[in-house]
Amino acid sequence: MQIFSFKKFLKEQFILLSLSAIVGILSALFIAFFLKLLEAATAYRNSHFQLLFLLPIAGWVIYLSYQYLGKNSSKGNNLIIKEAKGNQESVPAVMLPLVLFGTVITHLFGGSAGREGTAVQIGGTVAAKISEWCKLNQQLRSILLICGIGAGFSAVFGTPLTGFVFSLEVLVIGKMEYKAAPYSLIASLIANYFCLQLGIHHTKYFITSSIPMNGEWISIALKVGIASIGFGLAGYLFSYFIELFKKIYSKILPKAWMIPIFGGIIIIILGQWLVGKDYLGLGVDPNYPGAASIVGAFHAGGSFTWSWFWKLLFTTITLSAGFKGGEVTPLFFIGAALGNTLATLFNIPIDLLAGVGFIAVFAAATNTPLACTMMGIELFGAANLPFFAIGCFVAYYCSGHSGIYTSQNIGIAKN
Amino acid sequence: MQIFSFKKFLKEQFILLSLSAIVGILSALFIAFFLKLLEAATAYRNSHFQLLFLLPIAGWVIYLSYQYLGKNSSKGNNLIIKEAKGNQESVPAVMLPLVLFGTVITHLFGGSAGREGTAVQIGGTVAAKISEWCKLNQQLRSILLICGIGAGFSAVFGTPLTGFVFSLEVLVIGKMEYKAAPYSLIASLIANYFCLQLGIHHTKYFITSSIPMNGEWISIALKVGIASIGFGLAGYLFSYFIELFKKIYSKILPKAWMIPIFGGIIIIILGQWLVGKDYLGLGVDPNYPGAASIVGAFHAGGSFTWSWFWKLLFTTITLSAGFKGGEVTPLFFIGAALGNTLATLFNIPIDLLAGVGFIAVFAAATNTPLACTMMGIELFGAANLPFFAIGCFVAYYCSGHSGIYTSQNIGIAKN
Repeated sequence: MQIFSFKKFLKEQFILLSLSAIVGILSALFIAFFLKLLEAATAYRNSHFQLLFLLPIAGWVIYLSYQYLGKNSSKGNNLIIKEAKGNQESVPAVMLPLVLFGTVITHLFGGSAGREGTAVQIGGTVAAKISEWCKLNQQLRSILLICGIGAGFSAVFGTPLTGFVFSLEVLVIGKMEYKAAPYSLIASLIANYFCLQLGIHHTKYFITSSIPMNGEWISIALKVGIASIGFGLAGYLFSYFIELFKKIYSKILPKAWMIPIFGGIIIIILGQWLVGKDYLGLGVDPNYPGAASIVGAFHAGGSFTWSWFWKLLFTTITLSAGFKGGEVTPLFFIGAALGNTLATLFNIPIDLLAGVGFIAVFAAATNTPLACTMMGIELFGAANLPFFAIGCFVAYYCSGHSGIYTSQNIGIAKN
Repeated sequence: MQIFSFKKFLKEQFILLSLSAIVGILSALFIAFFLKLLEAATAYRNSHFQLLFLLPIAGWVIYLSYQYLGKNSSKGNNLIIKEAKGNQESVPAVMLPLVLFGTVITHLFGGSAGREGTAVQIGGTVAAKISEWCKLNQQLRSILLICGIGAGFSAVFGTPLTGFVFSLEVLVIGKMEYKAAPYSLIASLIANYFCLQLGIHHTKYFITSSIPMNGEWISIALKVGIASIGFGLAGYLFSYFIELFKKIYSKILPKAWMIPIFGGIIIIILGQWLVGKDYLGLGVDPNYPGAASIVGAFHAGGSFTWSWFWKLLFTTITLSAGFKGGEVTPLFFIGAALGNTLATLFNIPIDLLAGVGFIAVFAAATNTPLACTMMGIELFGAANLPFFAIGCFVAYYCSGHSGIYTSQNIGIAKN
């Protein structure tokens, strides 16, 4: 009996270790392909801004593709998170191409969106299909889906430890479980490794300011803590606007297919005439010389006082209308730009507060403060680690229990 | 009603924020004093090795002090962990001086022990007494005790984020809760800050090897993973020996007061004649020129093939006989020395595997893989982060459900 169960244990370990490696490799392949396409789409749009006028039609095409081919794909990240928690709804294979091309189309025609949703859904679909083919039981399937989330996140941003911690932290608010830990670590490391080998380059960010451990340190730590209340509120506002616009759309428009068309038209009006083209697409690099961007937000003058709000508005209008891509890169933009604005107000080095905002708004909107602290380390180095932790945990604590992933349960209430 | 509960919420926040800062400051004061004493005791012993012959008497004095003054103090870390989980046993104020001087005496006379247990008990006693004076309810008291654990750990090693994560992670195996997160972060940051301001210097460790992201990286990652099974087993062996020696002592010795005397005599025999003086005391720096040490283990020839085993033996004999100080620094020694030994075998850079072993054996014995990964970052920088995570999670996973803190519950079984 003892020997039999040890054999079973070894067999299970072998299955999980091999499958988590396979999930990592396959996710990396799809995500590298996705990132290459996305890069090309962004570059093409930036030299052909008139594509923006087709955004409503692009939205309508995405809507139709999900309507006729998608099954339950439109549940997106929430479906993957639910499955990773042990739910047994089927994840359709078609989710992968739909979200991949839906995101590229969104960006090509100037929608304001991210890419982590796409990556998590790619990793999740790969994991779900492998579980199906191998006829895994519910427990192993849920572990493999966590691996898929980690692999996707890791590959798309080049941050393997963040992907790993995110995959454990995102399922439930205020709690973390280690059941899937070693396997998700393997999937995340392998996905990042292969993505780099396939020639993907990730944007490098730099915080060059370093704060000596004296009275100034305490003063800056306090200011970062106060600014992070603002980051938390921005994260809350993001979730709130997403819900609000969804309600408004479905109230004023009689048919569901009109929503992406209407949302597209609003983005055209904002982007072409009212606000500017800075906030179309991903926003990592400037859309035109002198535009606000994430990279720019780390320097004085690289983003403007209200850039954070415009990006928040563009993105929530885009995503709630059914465009694809996810929220995280726009959250980085909102945080870095708000950090840039607040740095001047609080007299803190701009690159430091932009970096803290980058991760803290994301922590607030997704309820994953530890993964975001890790992201600070992986992107900016460990020198300012205490400020990253202050930013992420304060923002997390001040953002309430809502968040962009409605399938998260509350494990531990924040107050 | 709404307004009233918001007022209550603000009041609670104000109380918790102020008290966590006070816990941080007071813990730092006591721990800085403790570290200064410990440094002096270690230096004095290293120039007066004949003090070793008084170790049995020192053990007997520690035993008597706990017997007549200690109340339930001898439960040590386990008492603090239980209280942080919401238990309502009283933590006696006398625990603080007893463990502080008990540890200094242990080191002065050549016992092999650590210092984190002392620090956690100092932080925990401070937090418990403040809770009592302020008549906090059970929920706030448990949050404040978690702050005490974080502050103690943070100050004693100069690693605030590790202290913070450790305080959340140590309570339950395989789970982590964020209830106390913002307060423990504050207590840990403040404790570290004040300890540094009080002139405490922490030993600096360096991993200079850096591994490029190519085929070599994969090969080293695999080797680190395999070596970490060894780190996990060493962590397991440590907990096993502690329990084993306790059983043996109480079986062969008719009276409890004989145990520290007997344990002391064994250490004299091993240290004076059989093995050597390398493994007496803390072991961070060499006890004499050419001795094995933690700092030495990062270089070829700075520790010997079986150094890890001797340190494990010395420490488990010392601690299970009732000497004070805690386990973590010896676990660092065991891990770094085992890493040094295995690095030659596996052809991995010595400093890298010594660093991974340093944190991984600790992760295995305390079931806190994330805190240990964070320690890798805080002590050695983020460049080798993936290897730190592999080491800590593999070792954690391979160490079984036992651990040095018997008051941990199993939240999520490892298999």
